[in-house]
Amino acid sequence: MLVVQKYGGSSLQDADRIRQIAARVLKTQRSGHEVVVVCSAMGDSSDELIDLAEEVSDNRPAREMDMLLASGERVSNALMAMAIHDLGGSARSLSGAQAGVFTDANHGSAGIEEVAPARVREVLAQGAVALVAGFQGLCRETGDTTTLGRGGSDVTAVALAAALDADVCEIYTDVDGVFSADPRVVPGARLLETVSCTDMLEMAATGAKVLMSRCVEYAQRHGVEICVRSSFTDGSGTLVSQAPSSAGEEPRTMGVTHTGSMTLITVADPPAGPAARPRMSMLLTEARIPADMVQTITTPMGREVAFTVPDADARRTVDLLERHRDRIGYGPVRSESGIGRVSLVGTGHLGDAGVVDALAEAGIDVRLTATSELRVSALCAADRLHDAVRALHSAFALDTAAKAVVHAGTGR
Amino acid sequence: MLVVQKYGGSSLQDADRIRQIAARVLKTQRSGHEVVVVCSAMGDSSDELIDLAEEVSDNRPAREMDMLLASGERVSNALMAMAIHDLGGSARSLSGAQAGVFTDANHGSAGIEEVAPARVREVLAQGAVALVAGFQGLCRETGDTTTLGRGGSDVTAVALAAALDADVCEIYTDVDGVFSADPRVVPGARLLETVSCTDMLEMAATGAKVLMSRCVEYAQRHGVEICVRSSFTDGSGTLVSQAPSSAGEEPRTMGVTHTGSMTLITVADPPAGPAARPRMSMLLTEARIPADMVQTITTPMGREVAFTVPDADARRTVDLLERHRDRIGYGPVRSESGIGRVSLVGTGHLGDAGVVDALAEAGIDVRLTATSELRVSALCAADRLHDAVRALHSAFALDTAAKAVVHAGTGR
Repeated sequence: MLVVQKYGGSSLQDADRIRQIAARVLKTQRSGHEVVVVCSAMGDSSDELIDLAEEVSDNRPAREMDMLLASGERVSNALMAMAIHDLGGSARSLSGAQAGVFTDANHGSAGIEEVAPARVREVLAQGAVALVAGFQGLCRETGDTTTLGRGGSDVTAVALAAALDADVCEIYTDVDGVFSADPRVVPGARLLETVSCTDMLEMAATGAKVLMSRCVEYAQRHGVEICVRSSFTDGSGTLVSQAPSSAGEEPRTMGVTHTGSMTLITVADPPAGPAARPRMSMLLTEARIPADMVQTITTPMGREVAFTVPDADARRTVDLLERHRDRIGYGPVRSESGIGRVSLVGTGHLGDAGVVDALAEAGIDVRLTATSELRVSALCAADRLHDAVRALHSAFALDTAAKAVVHAGTGR
Repeated sequence: MLVVQKYGGSSLQDADRIRQIAARVLKTQRSGHEVVVVCSAMGDSSDELIDLAEEVSDNRPAREMDMLLASGERVSNALMAMAIHDLGGSARSLSGAQAGVFTDANHGSAGIEEVAPARVREVLAQGAVALVAGFQGLCRETGDTTTLGRGGSDVTAVALAAALDADVCEIYTDVDGVFSADPRVVPGARLLETVSCTDMLEMAATGAKVLMSRCVEYAQRHGVEICVRSSFTDGSGTLVSQAPSSAGEEPRTMGVTHTGSMTLITVADPPAGPAARPRMSMLLTEARIPADMVQTITTPMGREVAFTVPDADARRTVDLLERHRDRIGYGPVRSESGIGRVSLVGTGHLGDAGVVDALAEAGIDVRLTATSELRVSALCAADRLHDAVRALHSAFALDTAAKAVVHAGTGR
C-alpha cells in the first residue's frame, strides 16, 4: 500500500514528539507500506514567525510572508528525516517545490494547479520515507515560493495522495477523529467511523474544525479517501469516504456542529425587483465575505434581508453595504454580534420543526433558521450556544452508541 | 555603482536591528546605487536549529542539516524585505537557488561552482533592492539545497559581487574593520585603512576572525574589492584591496594575529629518506587536518617532527598517526595542549630574531617559531598569548598612528 500521512503542528511540538512520530512513521513503513509524510511547521513556530514579521514591519508583502512562513515546514521535515535516520530508517525531506507542488501566484492562499511528484516517487523507489513540506508550493510562472493558507498542509497531503494514487491519506491530529459534536461541549459525543465527503463538507462549513472544507473538496474532486486519526493513540479514526453515507432514502443525522462569534446583519427595505438581491449578493461575494443563512423576512415593519457573517468580517461588511447604499438602494443596515449558529447535519430532516422544538424545549430562543438538503441551522445567543448543541445532540439521539434513528420531524 | 552588502547575524539579532539595517540599505540605494544585500541568519538562530537537531537525532544526515539550516537565511531576508517595504522602499528576497548560486553536492561545506544571477539583475532592473539568502546554494545535479559552511554568507556576497561585476562588496560586521591586532587584546590596535588580499589571507589564516580565508581567496581569484565595515557606525572600514600593499621593496608590518587553543604534536624518530615526510604530510592532508608550523627538530635525544593543530583536531590527529605508525615507521607521538600561536604578518622581517627578542624581553618562553615570506609565527603557553600579542604589537610600533616603520631585525 502507498500511504500518505499528514502530521499537524501540535503533533510536532518538540524534539520528543518528533521522535514519537518518527517511530510511528517507521512502524507503518516496516509493516510493508510505502510512506509519504507531510509535516506542518512545529507547534507555534508559524505564529512566532508572524509575530516577528509584525514587529519588523507594518507593511508585509504577501510574497515575503510566504518566503518567511514556508521555512517552518522545511525545518520540521528536515528534523523528521533526522529522527527517522536516528531510529535506523531512511528518509529524505523535500520542499514543496522539490515535491512538485505547483500553485498559482496567489501568495498567502495559493491554489494547487498541478502536482508532479517525480522526486517523491524516486525517494520511495529507494526504499526511503518521502517527507514533504506541507502548506507550500512553487509558482512556476514567477519562480516564487507560495503558501496555501489555512489548512494548507492537509491540502498538500490530499493533493499528493491524489497525484500518487495513494491507497489512503491519513490526517493525524490531536483528536481521535470526527465526532458527532465537539467532545469538549458534548462529553457523550460519538466518534464517527465513516462520514461521506458530502456530509463532511457540510460539517466543516458549519463549524467542525478537524478538517477544512477546501481539503475535503479537494479529496472529493480527486476521489481520495481521507482517514482522520489521532497521532497519540492507535484508534482507527474516521474514514471520510467517497461513498454516499447511506442508500439515500433513509434519513440520517451525522452530527451537531456549531460556530460562535457570528454577527447578524440586517438590511432594511431591500429594493424589490429581480435584480436587486443578486446585486447585494454580488457585493458580498466579490469582497469574499462568507455570508450564511441569507433570507428575506417580512415583519409588520416591512421587509428586511438578514444574514450572518463571522464577527471578524462584520465591520467591513457594514462599511461595504453603507458605501453602496445609494447605488443599490436600501434602508438602514444593522449589525448584532454575540450570535451563535448551531447546525444539525444530515438529510431527511424535513424542515426545521424538529430543531426548533428541541431548542424551545431547552429554553433557547431561536433567532432565525435555515434549512437545506444537508442541514438545519439555527441562530441563538452565543452564550446559549453550547446548551443548544447539547440539546440537539440529545434530542436527535446522537449520544447513543447505536446509529441515530430519530430525525427531524419526529424528534422527541 | 552596484554595491553588494553583506550583514552578519549579530547585525540582525532582533526586529529593531533589522529595521536599522533596512534604513542603512535604503540610504545606500537612495544615494543612487544599485544594491544587492546578503543577510546571514538572525543572531543565534542557526545555533538554536543545531541544538534542536541534536535533541532530535544523534544521526543527522548532512543533506537534512542543510535543509534545516538554509531556512535561517530565508527568514532573515524575508524580514529584511518587509522592513524595507515598511520604510517606503522596494525589495525582493531570493533564496540561494533563486539567486542562481549553484554549488557542488558537498553538503555542509559546499563549494560554489557557478553564480548565474539573472533574477538578481531582474530585481535590480525593477528598481528594487535584491536580497539574497547567504550561506546556501543549490546543487543542480541532485536538486538539493546545500550550505557553504562557516563564513558562507561572506562567500555568497563575494561570489555575487564577482558575478554581477559589482563595484564593491561591503562586509558589515560588529567591528569597525580589520585591526593591526584584536582590539580586545590590544586597546591601542590600529584600524587598517587598506590591506592587500595577500596580507589579509595571511592574517585570516593566523587568527584574524573578521574575514575567513576562503572568502578572501574567492575575492582574490575573482578580483573583487572587499570593504569590511561596522554595521553600527559610519566609519569607512578597511579596504581589502587587489593591489599589493606596497611597492614590494619596503618592509611592512600589517599586524599581529593570534590563535589560542592549539595543540603541539611531536613525532619522535621520523623515518629518514625523501619519501617519509611526504607520506606523513599526505596523511594529514587527506584527513583535512590543518597542520601548521611543521618542522623537523634535532635535539640531543634525536630528531623529531613537530607541528600544531587546533585543539579540536588533536585527538583524531594522534589517533591517525598511531594507526599508521607501523606502515610509515616512526617513534612515539606526543601531544601537548595549552599552546598559543602569535604571528607577525607582513614582509621583510628577515627571520624570526625580532620576534624572539621582543617576546624574550617580555619574559615569554618561545616554544617554536616558523617564518615565511609573509609572517613570523611563534608558539608560547596559551596563558601568555595575550601578553605576547601586546609585546609584538608594541615592539613593532603598530600602535602608533603613523605607519609602522620598525621591522623585524631592527625591532627595539
